[in-house]
Amino acid sequence: MAEFFPEIPKIQFEGKESTNPLAFRFYDPNEVIDGKPLKDHLKFSVAFWHTFVNEGRDPFGDPTAERPWNRFSDPMDKAFARVDALFEFCEKLNIEYFCFHDRDIAPEGKTLRETNKILDKVVERIKERMKDSNVKLLWGTANLFSHPRYMHGAATTCSADVFAYAAAQVKKALEITKELGGEGYVFWGGREGYETLLNTDLGLELENLARFLRMAVEYAKKIGFTGQFLIEPKPKEPTKHQYDFDVATAYAFLKNHGLDEYFKFNIEANHATLAGHTFQHELRMARILGKLGSIDANQGDLLLGWDTDQFPTNIYDTTLAMYEVIKAGGFTKGGLNFDAKVRRASYKVEDLFIGHIAGMDTFALGFKIAYKLAKDGVFDKFIEEKYRSFKEGIGKEIVEGKTDFEKLEEYIIDKEDIELPSGKQEYLESLLNSYIVKTIAELR
Amino acid sequence: MAEFFPEIPKIQFEGKESTNPLAFRFYDPNEVIDGKPLKDHLKFSVAFWHTFVNEGRDPFGDPTAERPWNRFSDPMDKAFARVDALFEFCEKLNIEYFCFHDRDIAPEGKTLRETNKILDKVVERIKERMKDSNVKLLWGTANLFSHPRYMHGAATTCSADVFAYAAAQVKKALEITKELGGEGYVFWGGREGYETLLNTDLGLELENLARFLRMAVEYAKKIGFTGQFLIEPKPKEPTKHQYDFDVATAYAFLKNHGLDEYFKFNIEANHATLAGHTFQHELRMARILGKLGSIDANQGDLLLGWDTDQFPTNIYDTTLAMYEVIKAGGFTKGGLNFDAKVRRASYKVEDLFIGHIAGMDTFALGFKIAYKLAKDGVFDKFIEEKYRSFKEGIGKEIVEGKTDFEKLEEYIIDKEDIELPSGKQEYLESLLNSYIVKTIAELR
Amino acid sequence: MAEFFPEIPKIQFEGKESTNPLAFRFYDPNEVIDGKPLKDHLKFSVAFWHTFVNEGRDPFGDPTAERPWNRFSDPMDKAFARVDALFEFCEKLNIEYFCFHDRDIAPEGKTLRETNKILDKVVERIKERMKDSNVKLLWGTANLFSHPRYMHGAATTCSADVFAYAAAQVKKALEITKELGGEGYVFWGGREGYETLLNTDLGLELENLARFLRMAVEYAKKIGFTGQFLIEPKPKEPTKHQYDFDVATAYAFLKNHGLDEYFKFNIEANHATLAGHTFQHELRMARILGKLGSIDANQGDLLLGWDTDQFPTNIYDTTLAMYEVIKAGGFTKGGLNFDAKVRRASYKVEDLFIGHIAGMDTFALGFKIAYKLAKDGVFDKFIEEKYRSFKEGIGKEIVEGKTDFEKLEEYIIDKEDIELPSGKQEYLESLLNSYIVKTIAELR
Amino acid sequence: MAEFFPEIPKIQFEGKESTNPLAFRFYDPNEVIDGKPLKDHLKFSVAFWHTFVNEGRDPFGDPTAERPWNRFSDPMDKAFARVDALFEFCEKLNIEYFCFHDRDIAPEGKTLRETNKILDKVVERIKERMKDSNVKLLWGTANLFSHPRYMHGAATTCSADVFAYAAAQVKKALEITKELGGEGYVFWGGREGYETLLNTDLGLELENLARFLRMAVEYAKKIGFTGQFLIEPKPKEPTKHQYDFDVATAYAFLKNHGLDEYFKFNIEANHATLAGHTFQHELRMARILGKLGSIDANQGDLLLGWDTDQFPTNIYDTTLAMYEVIKAGGFTKGGLNFDAKVRRASYKVEDLFIGHIAGMDTFALGFKIAYKLAKDGVFDKFIEEKYRSFKEGIGKEIVEGKTDFEKLEEYIIDKEDIELPSGKQEYLESLLNSYIVKTIAELR
Repeated sequence: MAEFFPEIPKIQFEGKESTNPLAFRFYDPNEVIDGKPLKDHLKFSVAFWHTFVNEGRDPFGDPTAERPWNRFSDPMDKAFARVDALFEFCEKLNIEYFCFHDRDIAPEGKTLRETNKILDKVVERIKERMKDSNVKLLWGTANLFSHPRYMHGAATTCSADVFAYAAAQVKKALEITKELGGEGYVFWGGREGYETLLNTDLGLELENLARFLRMAVEYAKKIGFTGQFLIEPKPKEPTKHQYDFDVATAYAFLKNHGLDEYFKFNIEANHATLAGHTFQHELRMARILGKLGSIDANQGDLLLGWDTDQFPTNIYDTTLAMYEVIKAGGFTKGGLNFDAKVRRASYKVEDLFIGHIAGMDTFALGFKIAYKLAKDGVFDKFIEEKYRSFKEGIGKEIVEGKTDFEKLEEYIIDKEDIELPSGKQEYLESLLNSYIVKTIAELR
Repeated sequence: MAEFFPEIPKIQFEGKESTNPLAFRFYDPNEVIDGKPLKDHLKFSVAFWHTFVNEGRDPFGDPTAERPWNRFSDPMDKAFARVDALFEFCEKLNIEYFCFHDRDIAPEGKTLRETNKILDKVVERIKERMKDSNVKLLWGTANLFSHPRYMHGAATTCSADVFAYAAAQVKKALEITKELGGEGYVFWGGREGYETLLNTDLGLELENLARFLRMAVEYAKKIGFTGQFLIEPKPKEPTKHQYDFDVATAYAFLKNHGLDEYFKFNIEANHATLAGHTFQHELRMARILGKLGSIDANQGDLLLGWDTDQFPTNIYDTTLAMYEVIKAGGFTKGGLNFDAKVRRASYKVEDLFIGHIAGMDTFALGFKIAYKLAKDGVFDKFIEEKYRSFKEGIGKEIVEGKTDFEKLEEYIIDKEDIELPSGKQEYLESLLNSYIVKTIAELR
Repeated sequence: MAEFFPEIPKIQFEGKESTNPLAFRFYDPNEVIDGKPLKDHLKFSVAFWHTFVNEGRDPFGDPTAERPWNRFSDPMDKAFARVDALFEFCEKLNIEYFCFHDRDIAPEGKTLRETNKILDKVVERIKERMKDSNVKLLWGTANLFSHPRYMHGAATTCSADVFAYAAAQVKKALEITKELGGEGYVFWGGREGYETLLNTDLGLELENLARFLRMAVEYAKKIGFTGQFLIEPKPKEPTKHQYDFDVATAYAFLKNHGLDEYFKFNIEANHATLAGHTFQHELRMARILGKLGSIDANQGDLLLGWDTDQFPTNIYDTTLAMYEVIKAGGFTKGGLNFDAKVRRASYKVEDLFIGHIAGMDTFALGFKIAYKLAKDGVFDKFIEEKYRSFKEGIGKEIVEGKTDFEKLEEYIIDKEDIELPSGKQEYLESLLNSYIVKTIAELR
Repeated sequence: MAEFFPEIPKIQFEGKESTNPLAFRFYDPNEVIDGKPLKDHLKFSVAFWHTFVNEGRDPFGDPTAERPWNRFSDPMDKAFARVDALFEFCEKLNIEYFCFHDRDIAPEGKTLRETNKILDKVVERIKERMKDSNVKLLWGTANLFSHPRYMHGAATTCSADVFAYAAAQVKKALEITKELGGEGYVFWGGREGYETLLNTDLGLELENLARFLRMAVEYAKKIGFTGQFLIEPKPKEPTKHQYDFDVATAYAFLKNHGLDEYFKFNIEANHATLAGHTFQHELRMARILGKLGSIDANQGDLLLGWDTDQFPTNIYDTTLAMYEVIKAGGFTKGGLNFDAKVRRASYKVEDLFIGHIAGMDTFALGFKIAYKLAKDGVFDKFIEEKYRSFKEGIGKEIVEGKTDFEKLEEYIIDKEDIELPSGKQEYLESLLNSYIVKTIAELR
């Protein structure tokens, strides 16, 4: 088998003092925490599209990326090369999962029938490579946004033919995701939304979206696909308004159509901030609803209004994200998928590795800090004390539903003063810094 | 009865050529359109807080407003003066509705019992004034955000006593709203949210919010209050994150707690844009859900990140808003409440009148344009044609739920091309301008 | 000569009642206002890149556009076809100007020498076509952002070779702009900025930018190019931070390096709003500085964080923009260049025409309203009255520089009250609506 | 002397393991780094307005703050109490500087003459307290934004009388700043801007602003005030658009009026982000211009659109800020002024101390990391290598001004390939994390 990254050695954990750019400083995959190796807490995944397909194009610039598979001009040769490169990449980085869209891995033919045949060949290649490898499929998905046919949407298009095409494409994507043992299947509706309400039948589009998801649920049952269905919210871009705006909105939609039991959420940091929320907010909302499924691990630039999909390097973000994951009981059928791309000017092959190392190290550090925060019950204790009035007396009656407006009025109507705790945000932020420091001080 | 605005005459409709700042140019309350006078289509309402309480303070500046009731120093005298001024104001402007918070109209006492007694006196005064007037109550509400006791929220506070206080306050507000014949009752949760997740029990807070709303529903039933309950979404400000972020989020919450049948929405333009949506989007979402209740008519500045609550003067906004209202069948228990304040530098009494005239004229114009758009089916026809593939064949089967992924695959798998309509956004925007022009050309 | 748009007739002015999508409703090019035909007040220009090169790609989607020159596969054939199509397009729309980047009109060769030869052939074709046409070049520019060599910037790159390449490219672009009789030359620095300060020598980059502009000034003098040099500010996108952030920033830079006398500004609506300003603000700033050169006429979506470059259809925006242009004395070497692209779903050829018609009609209407506002001195009178205290007494002394802190203290120290005018924003916005209505009512 | 905070002990450095909320964990004022105690590197300052005047009011809520001086009802008693409390506060926190506005420290009288007399009494009290204390004045300023007279601006008002009043107020503020030995004097133009261009004479307002600043410069010379004049940029809030939008804009203005030599900048983190910049960007711009004067140390919430003025607790921000300060040679007449307020719900006295401790600890940590980054030349080395092409050959000629477009064309016209370095953003961000970890690992 040809080596695609001969200049890159297997990436080793060298500890916090290492100055080797091609080494982990904080991530030791086999370090056991709470009875489980770190790699199983974090379940890192490579995003096929960003790392093996994306070429460094932006709306104002041509591709910049130097990639070893660019030497192949035949589309199938290139497709197979990318698959082989994926496995080499994952092994060198000790990453055990990947994610893909159908159209990332194989080119389209003239008809869907032809396209599916081409796809099958690449899927076959992936299966072969999986035999000798630890690498598994975290989740699959269908690209229902790049082709011009999806200009008006897929499930929410104005064209019944396009709806049918999208349905058939998801059908096939479910089949191959099952075949490759995927733990989940993601719906990201980049074109499920509108550009202007002036030309949009909002009611019909939302109904059709529900119909589409219901058919997907039924087909999954029929073929025995038991992976987790995941909705990935995003408020806008490419479409002006996207229907899966955020967790709350997407949950309302599912609930409204009786679909909520079949779906969890795949939360992306940069999508959260585009919706005006923190990454932690979206994770917390999903957690509270029992719907935290998986994570698209990246970071955005809050001063920019588009999805920058940067590799996550902010310790605060990874700490608070892992805190929510730990509180939710850890990942089951989800993981941390690096839906992140190297900057257009980080165009060398080496940068692909460095980007992932940076992300993995930052999440490893974040996990350790979060684990300590959770274990010590730092915030829990504060919160318990702050809300203790709901544990007894009138508060307990409120929570237990044993009171009403009249009783509450009687209780309070002559009271002159109510004593309140301080919110202590400054103290809690300072405590978070202390735990970052404490955790780092104990690093090997 | 003392006159508060002796320098302001009754505002007359003078037509589009008028240069009198104290006249309507486009709003003739009695002009009959579609069998109903314009005033009944628009149902304008004055917001007591902005027009009779707000003093022109901002976070960096002291009050600037010159107001006739400032000559009263005794709080009760001032409260009565404001009520009297309200009726004079409405009559001079030909406005038939107003809205208020409990704390706008009367000062607080030492205990809630005392406060309620004070409140009763002012309510009595309002009732008296109503006898000789056409002025009615559009909706009432309770101020659960200004007093320090609500620093951590009202229904979502960490203090059971505060929850009880808020409950008792809403109980009383429901009673007086009923007594004054209010068509609706609004819940705006300015402090129902969080400042930082580090100190927040999100799950408990959301559960308590549901408990609170359920008790309100039950109490309204008990006292026979048949006004419409309205949630007014806002994403942030004063609180960093507010639970009623937008229509979709608030609807999800209601649905999740089995409360959706009891509530509609009060949509505010500036709250919509703070949530990253257009005003029309929020109205459309509410309409599609059958939940368009009432409107807080104002406008924001999209380049500023806070609620500026400006008087609405943008014809596009008022046209598209009224288009949604017309499509929803018009207002029933709702109306157009000017939740708008004159700029801090528009500090003269006259500016209060001019601001309302500007808003009324702009909404009157918007209504007329929207009415013509709806009557001519301008957008409807385009949309019907655009989506016609769902009216027959495979599209019809999709809509009627008679198909599945397998049948759809079979239908599409060998098709080579799919023909799509153009979205024609530029054409539709140009058409909107044409209708603005057509409507204006026909104005008296 | 082959016809590229046989299905599109010459676009005629049909007046406000017309329902023909391929007609002007408000723009009659030959209508004389203030002694000059409307077309000379507005000086519309087609942007070669958006209308003849852009294919409807977006960051998540492939090209959608149906274009008649797509039938040519040879790059030179396609380049010539686009040029021919441009002239047909302009003639059918009665547009007398166009703008282009060097790389829009011709493909690159292996070396700059080859590229320049290719470019010369296309320039020759343009010159030939100009002979039989009224179509002129508003301004030219060089594309210093698409090619990978510019990933780190052009004048602000870290590579001296790239700086040299950019210099040579601008040299050639100046030569061809001169040859084609261009009225101006634009510098838009899409890559002149930084992605992260961590890897940026900000001082060197800014110095190099000044060196580059100085060499351009010197070379223009040497070849006798007398067109107006224009800086086009943009705050971000594609680069995280761009040095020509807005008018004020770019002016500071020019002033700081003694370059201000050689440049004016080309103001784009969507760039203004991305910088947090209104379109009018940037125009006003440029006007006050005596630097309003030209306009990139489009509109953005203030709820989206990227440059949407929509066709301008908002009457308020075009009115206030033309108000500033009129106040600046009208265009001299500038005009209204439609730096606007049809939406990705407006993919038909017809939409290119409709988009331009929409923009031209909206600007024609805006001009007429603005002209009336300026002629009647509507805002001038208000402003004169508001600031009249600076026309006499202490105010006059302040303005004439005849006073100082001590005298001012003496003047004011014992005064108790200062009377202030109201800002009357609501009244002025209402007045603007009145003028929109008045102008429309008088339209033919 | 009465003690105002008897429950708060003197705050001690207890090291990173301390769990005492009222102790420093990372800030040891006397730790010597690079030959200077940490306190002299950081020069912390208390903002009188936020800590001793602000009551926890927000636009939707009443004051919440519990403060010991609230027991005084007489305005002068309260003013003196605040002064005394300031000195106790600074001593307990080991803070050596404070900043104030004239109106923070003393109430207004009926005329400016009376006001100045009242002010003198409080200044006298401050001087007395300074005698027995290390506490010094970092800078003074005049409040030209709270009083209604400034509704239209101060130096940019439409009223000559208000201009005179503002001038007289600054005159007095300069005198007392000098008397108290202030190292600087700040101009923050919260009302120097406009609400709408419709009512604004932008040209006159900008000229008047320049006239005002020139008079201030002249008066300072006359009285021998040698403190540093500082402009504090802010783009908006309270005013829609403020003239000192950001460093670049304010610098352009100063340069344009020949005032640049007299001013440096006071950079605030939250103002930077409201302008769409990072904190580091504004500091870097000021540094490159030789104008980094002082810092208003706080942090904003990038998902909120107003100035939240939170205590700085983000290690990345404090590291990159101190990096710029170190690169600028450290503070001379500036320092780190906590222009930060405790959250409205952090209403206890203790929270005032905790907020400052959190900020001081975070800046101490940031300084240490930044010092190591600067000392090791981490980014410098990368940057030097990235830009090395400008050190020799054609690059050297460019930088030395020895070339022109023709020579550059000749040099590059036949070159086929240009080799570029990678931007390596991911690597550099990862390196920053490594330095955070390295520094923390070495903490006592």
